[in-house]
Amino acid sequence: MRNDRIIGIIGGGQLARMMYAASIPLGLTVRLLAETTDSSAAQVVPDTTVGDYTDPDTVRAFAADCDVITFDHEHVPTALLCELEASGVGVRPSPNALVHAQDKAVMRARLSEMGIPCPAWRVCRTAEELVAFGDELGWPVIAKASRGGYDGKGVWRVVGPVDAGEPFEGLRSDAVIVAEEFIPFARELSALVVRRPGGEARAYPVSETVQRDSICHETTTPAPGLSAEVAAQLSSDALRIAEELDVVGILAVELMECPDGRVVVNELAMRPHNTGHWSIEGAVTSQFENHLRAVADLPLGDTGGREPAVCMSNVLGGPRTDLVAALGTVCGENPRVHAHLYGKEVKPGRKVGHVTVCGPDPGTVQREARWASDYLEGRR
Amino acid sequence: MRNDRIIGIIGGGQLARMMYAASIPLGLTVRLLAETTDSSAAQVVPDTTVGDYTDPDTVRAFAADCDVITFDHEHVPTALLCELEASGVGVRPSPNALVHAQDKAVMRARLSEMGIPCPAWRVCRTAEELVAFGDELGWPVIAKASRGGYDGKGVWRVVGPVDAGEPFEGLRSDAVIVAEEFIPFARELSALVVRRPGGEARAYPVSETVQRDSICHETTTPAPGLSAEVAAQLSSDALRIAEELDVVGILAVELMECPDGRVVVNELAMRPHNTGHWSIEGAVTSQFENHLRAVADLPLGDTGGREPAVCMSNVLGGPRTDLVAALGTVCGENPRVHAHLYGKEVKPGRKVGHVTVCGPDPGTVQREARWASDYLEGRR
Repeated sequence: MRNDRIIGIIGGGQLARMMYAASIPLGLTVRLLAETTDSSAAQVVPDTTVGDYTDPDTVRAFAADCDVITFDHEHVPTALLCELEASGVGVRPSPNALVHAQDKAVMRARLSEMGIPCPAWRVCRTAEELVAFGDELGWPVIAKASRGGYDGKGVWRVVGPVDAGEPFEGLRSDAVIVAEEFIPFARELSALVVRRPGGEARAYPVSETVQRDSICHETTTPAPGLSAEVAAQLSSDALRIAEELDVVGILAVELMECPDGRVVVNELAMRPHNTGHWSIEGAVTSQFENHLRAVADLPLGDTGGREPAVCMSNVLGGPRTDLVAALGTVCGENPRVHAHLYGKEVKPGRKVGHVTVCGPDPGTVQREARWASDYLEGRR
Repeated sequence: MRNDRIIGIIGGGQLARMMYAASIPLGLTVRLLAETTDSSAAQVVPDTTVGDYTDPDTVRAFAADCDVITFDHEHVPTALLCELEASGVGVRPSPNALVHAQDKAVMRARLSEMGIPCPAWRVCRTAEELVAFGDELGWPVIAKASRGGYDGKGVWRVVGPVDAGEPFEGLRSDAVIVAEEFIPFARELSALVVRRPGGEARAYPVSETVQRDSICHETTTPAPGLSAEVAAQLSSDALRIAEELDVVGILAVELMECPDGRVVVNELAMRPHNTGHWSIEGAVTSQFENHLRAVADLPLGDTGGREPAVCMSNVLGGPRTDLVAALGTVCGENPRVHAHLYGKEVKPGRKVGHVTVCGPDPGTVQREARWASDYLEGRR
C-alpha cells in the first residue's frame, strides 16, 4: 500500500495548527504554506513556507515538495487546484469536490439534484431578480455571495426590495448572489463525516451548534433531544453527499432545524470544522487525525463519542489579552476543562481559542464550558 | 500570576516529542536541546538547538533563553543543574529532587528514611562487600550502578560470589554499586503522580506493567485485581514521596508486587514515563500535559481514567521497518487502536512507538493492543 505521507497544508490558521498536533503521533510529515510567519500554525510547524496561496508559482513550488496537499481553508482558486491535480499532485479534497464548498451556487444545484433537503433558492444576477425571488417567496430572504464569504461575511438578510441592491455592491467577478428562503430555524445542527479515497467513510455523532453573528460559538454533542431516527437520517445524508461529491477528508454539513422538525442544509465545508473541535477529547478519533488519515489514504479511526455529553465553546477575542495567564484561573476552577489556545493576537471577536468539557449530561458540560470561555474572553 | 511559559526541554527523545504535542493547545512556547537534528523530538519542534547536554556552556546558553527547563531524561549532570538553579534559571524538577532519580544510592537512603517499603539494600564499594551482602541475605542478589543506568543497562543479577566482580568493572567514578535483595515478584506496578510548585498534586490510577529484558513492554490501567485499599496506599506513598522530595512534574514510582502481596519500590523517575503513555487517550489529562502544566506552574488537570481498562503496548524495533505503511494494516484491523510513532529509525529492540487501546475490560484491550504492536514489530 502506498501512503501519502508528506502532507502539505495550505493555510496557517488554527485548523492547520490542530492538524499538525494530530500528525505527530502518526509519524506523517507536514509541510505548511502560511500567510505570515506568526500565523497560528506557522508558530508550531518547523517546515513552514510563507507565501500567498493565490499565487500560482508559490503554490506550485510548495506542492512540488509534497505527496499530497490539503487545506486549512477553502480559498485556494479552483482553477489553480485543477492545474495541480492535472500535473499529478494529490489534491484532497479534489477541486471537483471542493468547488461545492467554495461555490454556494454549485452546491445548491448539486444538493437539489440529489434530493437533499435545502431551503428554496435561486441564483440572482441582478437586484431585480432578487426582488422577484423575495416577492414570490415572501420577505425577508437571505442573499449569499456564491464565492468568497466566510464567518458571516458575504451573507445578507434582505428585508425588502429597498435593500436588494446591497449584496451586489462590490461582488467578486466570479461570484453571483444565491437567494435563499429565510428559515426561522429552531436551532442549527452539524453532521460531520470523514471519507477516504476509495470510499471508506464514517460519521461522527450529530452536534447542536450555536452561532452568534454568524460565527460558531458553541457545540453540544450529541445534539440534545435529537431523535435517533433523525440523527441517523442526517448522518446518512452527509455520507451520501461525501460519496456523491467524492469528498476526501472531513465534510461538515451545516444544517438548520425548523420549528416543524424539517432539517435543511445550510452550508458545506470540506476540512476540519469548528463544529468538530469537540472530537479532540470527545471522540475516539479526532476530526484532525481522521482528516489526515483520509488525506494520507490510511484507514479511518472510530468516530464514536466517548462520553454522554461534550460541549465545545469558542473563545473570541475580548478584553482579556493574556490567555496563558488566564489558564491559571480556568484550569484551577475546573480540572476537567480542556483549553486550546491558538497563539493568535487577541483582537475583538477573533477566534483565539476554544475549550471543551466532557461529562454526564448536556447541562453540566454547557455550564462548565461557558464559564471557562467567558473567563478567557474577559467576561468574568 | 506569573507563568513560566517558555519551556526548555533538554533531551530530544520521544518523551520530548510527546510533550511538544501536548504543549500546542496550551499556547506554551517550547525550546528543545536535542542530541541530533534527526532525534525524535527535533523532527517536530521548530525551535531546536543541537548540542551536548553534558557540556556546561551549551546548557547555560540554552537555559538563558528559557523561563524554565525540564527534561526528557535524567542524565544532565546534577552539579550543572545546581549551578543553573543558583544563577536563577527555573529547573523543574529541581536538582535536589532529581538526584533521587539520578542516583539510586541517594534514593534508597531517602526512601528508607521515610519508611517507604524497599527491598533490603546496601551500598557496596567492592566485590567483597557485595559478596558479604549476598552471603548474609542469600543469593542471588541484584546489583545496580547507582548512576548512569537505564533500560536494564547498569543492572546485574548476581547469582553467587564468583560473579560479584562484574558490576564493578568500568563503573563510573561518581557511581557506587547498590546491592538489593532479589525480589521474585509476582508482577510490577507503577504509581504515577504529578506535582506543581507549591504542592498541588494528583495521582493517576496505578498501572500494571510488564517489562521484558528490563524494557517496559506493556501496561494495563487500572492494574487488574489490585484492591482499592492497596492502590490507595501506593498512590498515597507516591504523593508523599513527591511532597518530601519536592518533585515538580511527573513522578513515576516503579513498584514490585511480591507473591505475599507486599509491594516495594523498585525505581523512581521524574519525567513523563513509559508507564504513563496510556494517559494520552486513557486519562482526562495526559501525563505530558500535566507535566507541562506543573513545569509552567499552571493548575493540574484531572488525572482520572476515562475507561474501565486501558492497555499500552510498546513497539520495539523488529523486522518491519516502514511503520507508517504498517499503520494501514493496524488501523484497518481495529479502528479503536491509537498508534504513536516516534519518527526513529527502526533498530532491533529500540523503542520506536507504542499503541494504546481503551475498552471495557483488561482482556480485550490487552489482546487488541498486543496484536497491533506485534504487527508493527513485524511479528505478524
